[in-house]
Amino acid sequence: MLAEVSIFPVGEGVSLSKWVGRCLRIIDGSGLRYQLNPMGTVIEGDYDEVMEVIRRCHMAVLEDTERVSTYIKIDDRKGTKEAMLKKVQSVEERAGRPLSR
Amino acid sequence: MLAEVSIFPVGEGVSLSKWVGRCLRIIDGSGLRYQLNPMGTVIEGDYDEVMEVIRRCHMAVLEDTERVSTYIKIDDRKGTKEAMLKKVQSVEERAGRPLSR
Amino acid sequence: MLAEVSIFPVGEGVSLSKWVGRCLRIIDGSGLRYQLNPMGTVIEGDYDEVMEVIRRCHMAVLEDTERVSTYIKIDDRKGTKEAMLKKVQSVEERAGRPLSR
Amino acid sequence: MLAEVSIFPVGEGVSLSKWVGRCLRIIDGSGLRYQLNPMGTVIEGDYDEVMEVIRRCHMAVLEDTERVSTYIKIDDRKGTKEAMLKKVQSVEERAGRPLSR
Repeated sequence: MLAEVSIFPVGEGVSLSKWVGRCLRIIDGSGLRYQLNPMGTVIEGDYDEVMEVIRRCHMAVLEDTERVSTYIKIDDRKGTKEAMLKKVQSVEERAGRPLSR
Repeated sequence: MLAEVSIFPVGEGVSLSKWVGRCLRIIDGSGLRYQLNPMGTVIEGDYDEVMEVIRRCHMAVLEDTERVSTYIKIDDRKGTKEAMLKKVQSVEERAGRPLSR
Repeated sequence: MLAEVSIFPVGEGVSLSKWVGRCLRIIDGSGLRYQLNPMGTVIEGDYDEVMEVIRRCHMAVLEDTERVSTYIKIDDRKGTKEAMLKKVQSVEERAGRPLSR
Repeated sequence: MLAEVSIFPVGEGVSLSKWVGRCLRIIDGSGLRYQLNPMGTVIEGDYDEVMEVIRRCHMAVLEDTERVSTYIKIDDRKGTKEAMLKKVQSVEERAGRPLSR
């Protein structure tokens, strides 16, 4: 399963990198495969593994803030392994080149 | 905490009301406060309560489909009770009238 | 077409109802059918009509803030009229009762 | 402005890479900076530029399908240039290492 998550406090200033950093330490410590992008972090694992990591991130941000917004987008496809790698690969192979500029 | 969730299978036809119905039975059975809208269902409760209901919905849709898309938007504000009711109320009071057409 | 939108500034305090109110005045003034829920506002109309209203809301919030987060979830189904009403209705009819608690 | 977008048809089978490919050709042709990730594509540009590209993608998928789901997450921060690059960089610098596994 893949999940993309973004978690940030409401009303704690305009810069959010502190909170992203706090979550990334938790995600990295989980041992799960993940990838940070400019709008969120994609995590790969079983439903329960991934959701437990997200829960810990959410709680870590809520710990010393008053209000937290969390967005989770899940793509759960049976029998798929290494979806994080393969989803981009399959589109790039179809296109015949890397897809970023 | 409030969470809005939408869960549906990919590649199981254009009509999704069967799956929404399956999830709504689970959500209703949970005893939590909830509200169906045209784009999702808002559920109110503690983080773990709400996320456990969402987990059961996700699994119920995945049970006999191959791929499931789940979107969760969380608004977790400390010390707030009856947020489902009050969030709309506070904006309507400010506006002086009901906000739908 | 239906779109659910939520628009709020980052770093402008914990309460967001002022900004929701500002957007709702624009949405209401558009003449389009809409419905406020605790996590967003669902708007019904053609793609260009709805996206133009959302653009005006986004700009109105950005006007006197530094950073704005906007989430748009679109469900565009050909040949559907009054989807806002019918989507909830069809699930409630299937269930045989209103779906909220 | 940064926007992450994912656009796919409902009821057109389990594999979505064909549709992602169709959108990516449009996005690439726009000349805007973009980055494909396993859960969406992040595009950078002015609000109107980015939203016009998303509109063309949405219409291209709707063209020969019946129902399309589109998700747009916008982060619009005044005075920011090269946000696509800098958002990940600033978190990685804080962490002192690349943030993916």
